[in-house]
Amino acid sequence: MRYARLFGKTVREAPHEVRSPSQALLIQAGYIRPLGQGLFSELHLATRVLSRIKRVIRHEMDGLGGQEVKVPLVNPYDIWRRGGRAAFVRRGMVRFSDRDGHDLVLSPSHEEAMVQLVKDSLHSYRDLPVFLYQFQTKYRDEERARSGLIRAKEFVMKDGYSFHRSTYELNNFFPKMFAAYERIFRRCGISCVSAESGVGFMGGEKAFEFLMPSSSGDDVVIICDNCGYRANREIAKGIKETTDEPLRETELVETPGCTTMGKLATTLGVSPARLAKALVYRTQGGFVMAVVRGDYGISEEKLSKILRKPILGLAGASDLESLDLIPGFLSPIGREDLTVVVDDLIARSHNLVYGANTMNRHLVNGNFGRDFFSETIADIAQVNRSDRCLQCHSPLRAERAIEVGNIFKLGDFYTRRLNLQVQDERGKRLYPHMGSYGIGLGRLLSCIVEAHADDRGIRWPEILAPYRVYLMGIGKSPAVKRFVESLYCEFEDEILLDDRLESPGVKFKDADLLGIPLRVVVSPQLLEKREVELQERSTGKTWHVPADRLSALLKARIEERVDV
Amino acid sequence: MRYARLFGKTVREAPHEVRSPSQALLIQAGYIRPLGQGLFSELHLATRVLSRIKRVIRHEMDGLGGQEVKVPLVNPYDIWRRGGRAAFVRRGMVRFSDRDGHDLVLSPSHEEAMVQLVKDSLHSYRDLPVFLYQFQTKYRDEERARSGLIRAKEFVMKDGYSFHRSTYELNNFFPKMFAAYERIFRRCGISCVSAESGVGFMGGEKAFEFLMPSSSGDDVVIICDNCGYRANREIAKGIKETTDEPLRETELVETPGCTTMGKLATTLGVSPARLAKALVYRTQGGFVMAVVRGDYGISEEKLSKILRKPILGLAGASDLESLDLIPGFLSPIGREDLTVVVDDLIARSHNLVYGANTMNRHLVNGNFGRDFFSETIADIAQVNRSDRCLQCHSPLRAERAIEVGNIFKLGDFYTRRLNLQVQDERGKRLYPHMGSYGIGLGRLLSCIVEAHADDRGIRWPEILAPYRVYLMGIGKSPAVKRFVESLYCEFEDEILLDDRLESPGVKFKDADLLGIPLRVVVSPQLLEKREVELQERSTGKTWHVPADRLSALLKARIEERVDV
Repeated sequence: MRYARLFGKTVREAPHEVRSPSQALLIQAGYIRPLGQGLFSELHLATRVLSRIKRVIRHEMDGLGGQEVKVPLVNPYDIWRRGGRAAFVRRGMVRFSDRDGHDLVLSPSHEEAMVQLVKDSLHSYRDLPVFLYQFQTKYRDEERARSGLIRAKEFVMKDGYSFHRSTYELNNFFPKMFAAYERIFRRCGISCVSAESGVGFMGGEKAFEFLMPSSSGDDVVIICDNCGYRANREIAKGIKETTDEPLRETELVETPGCTTMGKLATTLGVSPARLAKALVYRTQGGFVMAVVRGDYGISEEKLSKILRKPILGLAGASDLESLDLIPGFLSPIGREDLTVVVDDLIARSHNLVYGANTMNRHLVNGNFGRDFFSETIADIAQVNRSDRCLQCHSPLRAERAIEVGNIFKLGDFYTRRLNLQVQDERGKRLYPHMGSYGIGLGRLLSCIVEAHADDRGIRWPEILAPYRVYLMGIGKSPAVKRFVESLYCEFEDEILLDDRLESPGVKFKDADLLGIPLRVVVSPQLLEKREVELQERSTGKTWHVPADRLSALLKARIEERVDV
Repeated sequence: MRYARLFGKTVREAPHEVRSPSQALLIQAGYIRPLGQGLFSELHLATRVLSRIKRVIRHEMDGLGGQEVKVPLVNPYDIWRRGGRAAFVRRGMVRFSDRDGHDLVLSPSHEEAMVQLVKDSLHSYRDLPVFLYQFQTKYRDEERARSGLIRAKEFVMKDGYSFHRSTYELNNFFPKMFAAYERIFRRCGISCVSAESGVGFMGGEKAFEFLMPSSSGDDVVIICDNCGYRANREIAKGIKETTDEPLRETELVETPGCTTMGKLATTLGVSPARLAKALVYRTQGGFVMAVVRGDYGISEEKLSKILRKPILGLAGASDLESLDLIPGFLSPIGREDLTVVVDDLIARSHNLVYGANTMNRHLVNGNFGRDFFSETIADIAQVNRSDRCLQCHSPLRAERAIEVGNIFKLGDFYTRRLNLQVQDERGKRLYPHMGSYGIGLGRLLSCIVEAHADDRGIRWPEILAPYRVYLMGIGKSPAVKRFVESLYCEFEDEILLDDRLESPGVKFKDADLLGIPLRVVVSPQLLEKREVELQERSTGKTWHVPADRLSALLKARIEERVDV
C-alpha cells in the first residue's frame, strides 16, 4: 500500500474528549474514527489488524472443533422473554417493532439465538458435543460508552457456544477453552490475568474473565499475590475483620447535613468502619434495602445473586419518598416492613452508627439482632483493602484492568428455559449443558495497542501488524526511487510505502506512530555504499544491511513470523 | 470436516412456507436456518461458501484500489436527516433512541456514514479519488421478506463508495466498476444481465442493476433482443402507441360495481386500452393523482422522479374520503383542485373512459386538453408488452429476475447535503462526486445455488464449494477405513468425510444435495483392484482412478482450481 493513497492519515492531536490512551493512539495513527457516542468506524489499517486477530482466534477455535456460523444481530424478543433475560431490555437492550408488528431486539449477546439454532438442528444426543462460534456485531446501550473501542455500543465479538450431554462433559471442555484463551492472548502479545467473575446478566453457574491490568480499565480485579487467588471485585471474597465489644445503649444524635459516609465520619470523629451504610435498590420484585459497613461498597452482583433477581438500579428520590425514607438518613432500624439484606459483617459488628430515618439525625450504637433483624444475612460487600485472602490469609490488593474476554459455564440455564432437549441412549430426555465464550475484538485491539505503545506511538506485534514493513526513500535520486519501487513491487501486500512529499522527519514520526514492526530507509548516501538502514520498532534497534540481501532478508522475516 | 460432527445435517423436507427454490435447497442441505421473518442463521457450510465469495469480491475491489473499512450499522439519525433520505425512515428504516437520548437508526445502506467518515479524514483534493468498501450488515424492514436470503431483513452487503474530484473522473471510474461486477458474477458462475434502473431511495443520477433471470425473482427487466436495450421495468422506456381519432362528445354511463379496470372493460365491452386509470399517492408534499391508460401500470419510480419527492404509498380509503374521491370511480375531470400527473400517452389518447367522481358512474369519451388539463405530462407508465424499443423499434419483452448487485452514480447528491468539500488546486471549494456499489451476499449465494441446482440438489462452482471433495467409504473393511482416513488426514481442510453409519444410498443422496464438486467413493471391491471411484457433481460423470494416484490427483485439482 502506498501511504499517499491510504485513506485516513495520521493526525497530530487526538480529540479532547478521548479518555483512554489506546483510543487516542488509534485515532491519531488513523486506525479508527468516531461516528457517534459509542460508535466507531474502522479505517483500512484497523480492518487489516482485525483480520489478523480473527485468524489467530479462528485457529484456536477450530483447534477445539469449533464450527464458524452466524446468527442474526436482530432477534425476536420472544426468545429473550422465554430465556429469562427480558428484564435487561430496560438496561441496555434496544427493542423495536417491524412493520408486521414483530417484537424485535438488537441482541447484546447471542445465547438465545444460538440455543434456537441448535434446537432447530439437533436431532440426537449423538450430535453432542457441539461447539459453534461466530464473529458478529452486538449492540449494548452502555451507560459508560466513553472509552473508545473498550466500551463501544456497537462492537464485534467472537462469541462461542458449546453444548454438552452433561455437566461432566462441560467441565471437561471448559479448561480446554480456558487454555485456548490464554494462548490467544499470548499470541496477541498481551498478558492477561484470569479471574473469577460474576455471571451478571448472562445467567448460569460460573464465569471467568480475562483481564489486562491497566490504569484506564473499568474493571477492578482483586489479587492475592501469595496464593494466586484472583477475582473480579464484584464477586471477590475476603476475610472481613471486626472486633468484639460489649453492646452499648443506642443514642440519637444530631447530624445536620451528614448525608455521606465521609461527612458523617468527620462530624462524629469516628472511622467509616464504625458506620453502617444502607442503600435501596429497585429489583424486579420491588425495593430492597442493602446494608454494609461504612468502609465497604455494595456488590450489586452479589446482591443480585442472593435475591435471585436482577438489580434494576438504585432507587431514586421519588422512590425513597414513596417508601417514607429520607435520603442520607436511611436505616433498617424500625423498618420491619422493608425487605432488608444485611452483609454478614454488619451482623458481626457491634455499636455502629445507623441512620435514624429522621432528617439530620443518626442513631449511635445500633446493633443487628438487638435493634433490628433480617433473615437475609450474606456477603454483599465489595472486597476492601483491609480484607485478607480467604485461602491463605495474606493481604489482598486491587488492580484496575480491562476485561478482554470471558467464559461462562451456563449449565442448563438457557436450554431448560428455551426447551432444547434431546433423548439420551436410554430414551431419557436431557437438557444439554452449555458454555459461552466471548472476546470483544475492539477491546482486544485496544489492549494490544495499550500493552505495546511507547511515547512515540503504537508497536504492533509482528503477526498482527497491518503491514510488516514501513518503507521510505530519502531525496529524489532516481537510484533510490528505482530501488524503493522494485522492493515495493516484490512485497506489495506487506509493505506500507511512504511515498509522500514530506520531510524525512515527518515520515519518521509517522512511522513510529503507525507502529509497523520494521522500518526500511533507503538513502542516497547509504545506497552508494550498497546498503540500506533497518530499524525495529519494538526495540528501536537500528542496523545496516547490504542492499542486495534485503529482499531475501524480508522474505525470510515475513515467512518466519507467520503465526498461523 | 467429518460429516458426523458437522452441525446442521440435511433435512428431507423444506418448510412449507418456503417460496424460493434456492431457499428450500439451502435449508434442506443444512446451509441456513430461519430465526424469524426475514432473519436467517448461517450454518458452517454457508459460512465457508460466503468466505470464498468474499475472497472473490475482495480481489476485484482491491484490484480497483479499494480499501476495506467498516462503518457502524447503527448511525446517528442526524446524518440521515441532513442527507435528505429521512422520509424513508417511515418506509423500512428502524429508528430508536439510546439511554442518553441520541436519535439513532439501523442503517439500510451506508452512504451517509461513509460521507461522514471521508469528511473526518479528507484533507486535500490530492487525497482523491478514494474508494472504500466494506462487508457490513444492513437492516431493511422489507415489505416482502418471504423469499429467504433474497429478501432478508437483516443481510450482509459488500458496499463500496468512491469519491472523485469531478463527474469526469467518476465517469471514468464507473465503467471499471461495471467490468469488475461482471467479472465477479462470472467467477461466481452466474450469468447476469445489466440493466438501467431507478435510483430509488439512494438519490443521485444514474444506476445500473445486475440481474439474474429467474422465475422466482421479484424484479422485472425489460429486454430488447434486437439492440440489447435492458432496463428495470420501473424505469424502462418504450414507444407507446395510440391511434388518432376525432374527439367525441362525453357521455355519462351507469357502471354499477365496476371498481376495477377488468370489470369496467367487460361491462362496457371495450379493451383496457380505451380506459383511463387514476390512482392517488401519498407523497411528502401531499396527495398526487396519477393517470395512465388502463392497459398500463404506474411506475412509482418514474412518478417520484417527476415529482422530485419520495412516494410514501397509495392513499387509503380514509385519505380518499377526505379528498372527496370515490374509490373505483376516481377521475381528474372536474378536479382542478388536485395535483395531477398525466402519462404522456393519456395526453395523446382520445375518447377514453374516465371515472365520474360519482358512485357507480363513468364518463365515456373523456379527452385531455378538452375535458381536463394538467401542467405535468410525463412518462409515468411501466412498459407494456405492446410497447416497442425506443432505440430500434423492435418488440420488447419482460423477464423476471433477481437483482444481485447495483451501482449508482450519485454525483454530489450526498456530498453537498452533508457538506463534504475540499479545496482544489486553485483554492476553489469542490464537492466530491460519488458512486456507490452494492452486492448482497445472501442474494448472490441464493443466485449461485439457483443457477446451478438440479433436481437432486446444489452444484457448487469449484472455487466456491464449502469443501472440494465429498469422501466416503463403503462397508466396514479395515483396508477401506485405513485408506479413507489417510486421505482425509492429508486434505482435512478440503474434504467432507461422510463417516456416518448410514447406508451408501443415503450418503449418495446427501452428497448430491450438498453439492460438493467431487465425490470419492472407496469400496472394498474396487480397492482390491487398487482403484477408487470418482464422480463429478456438475456433470454426473463417473470414472475410476488408481488408488495410489488419487492423492496426487486431488492435490493437482485443488491447486489448479484456485481462483484467487
